[in-house]
Amino acid sequence: MKKQKVSGAVIRRLPRYFRHLTDLHAEGMERISSSAFGKTMNLTASQIRQDLSCFGEFGQQGYGYNVEKLRQEISEILGMTLRHTAVVIGAGNLGRALIENFRFDRSGFQLIAAFDVDQKLVGSELAGVPIYHADTLEHYLAEQPVSVGVLTVPKHIAQSTADCLVEKGVKGIWNFTNVELAINEPSVVVENVHFADSLLALSYMISDEE
Amino acid sequence: MKKQKVSGAVIRRLPRYFRHLTDLHAEGMERISSSAFGKTMNLTASQIRQDLSCFGEFGQQGYGYNVEKLRQEISEILGMTLRHTAVVIGAGNLGRALIENFRFDRSGFQLIAAFDVDQKLVGSELAGVPIYHADTLEHYLAEQPVSVGVLTVPKHIAQSTADCLVEKGVKGIWNFTNVELAINEPSVVVENVHFADSLLALSYMISDEE
Repeated sequence: MKKQKVSGAVIRRLPRYFRHLTDLHAEGMERISSSAFGKTMNLTASQIRQDLSCFGEFGQQGYGYNVEKLRQEISEILGMTLRHTAVVIGAGNLGRALIENFRFDRSGFQLIAAFDVDQKLVGSELAGVPIYHADTLEHYLAEQPVSVGVLTVPKHIAQSTADCLVEKGVKGIWNFTNVELAINEPSVVVENVHFADSLLALSYMISDEE
Repeated sequence: MKKQKVSGAVIRRLPRYFRHLTDLHAEGMERISSSAFGKTMNLTASQIRQDLSCFGEFGQQGYGYNVEKLRQEISEILGMTLRHTAVVIGAGNLGRALIENFRFDRSGFQLIAAFDVDQKLVGSELAGVPIYHADTLEHYLAEQPVSVGVLTVPKHIAQSTADCLVEKGVKGIWNFTNVELAINEPSVVVENVHFADSLLALSYMISDEE
């Protein structure tokens, strides 16, 4: 598999495939045709076949897809079976929302620690996740390999925190800070969560022209 | 303008155009060629011209785009000048993070109220936004037109809360609950924020093949 050949649009659809297959599996569906699968995804059958062809051969002519098998295969393509680790940096409102409510494990991640400067939090646990002082982040990362740093710190320390994560060898940064991070290490992937982009798309869709 | 002719991919790029133009404007840039603009967006000049052609004529041959003018035009296309209103339902961690940290005004929205059942919150304000009891939501919506309901409630009341919002005439739901809402009113738009899709795309990008 050559990852560089897979377009961003296909990569963005893979999690949706996984999500829909998980739902279909939960509903007890064992197999599905590419056209029926396309319907649940708002895609054509041929688009689905083309997307999946980036990664190998899936499904059978006249049979369709085995829901659980395809779900398993896509989870492997997504790297969900690699036991990636994550730490949350910044246990403010958003950090806490992620720690307490977001199921990292369902995306194949282990959330192993969180960091903050608030002395009321440091030393405690949130949803079973230990909170350490932010000053100890560098040391922690030196001792413990971490795949992804979840960045929920205030804006003014976003870049310096990202620099620390990159220097200590994380593979990816899940960036909620709304700061465009400058990353000098090309192998490090930054995934930005832009709430405003989502709200503006909604704004567009609800705005009737006069 | 026929909105139904504009593809989802173009709609998703509009907020990015707006964000990049805002940054360019803040940097003091007055005009930009479509190829230079494309470079900052990771798009080709012709893709940008094609996207914008969905909405009219922009830019001038040999001049490029006036940054502030295009920014203004895109803000109008996005409906940012319509003074949409929003209420947050559910002032838990995520709701509070949005109320306190997300700049609704920068997306053209007025955040006018929030609702929760927590008696410690009801009657108070968060970042200047009044918190009312969730029991009064229906009455509030009957009195006060609201464009968008921001859904940050626990999963088990996501659908019933959405039903109330739809019945009282909101135009859109910004859904953070991870519940696939069933909406019977076709004019109501649901914009889902799927954290897991974002994390899984990151997982894919950091997962090296053996």
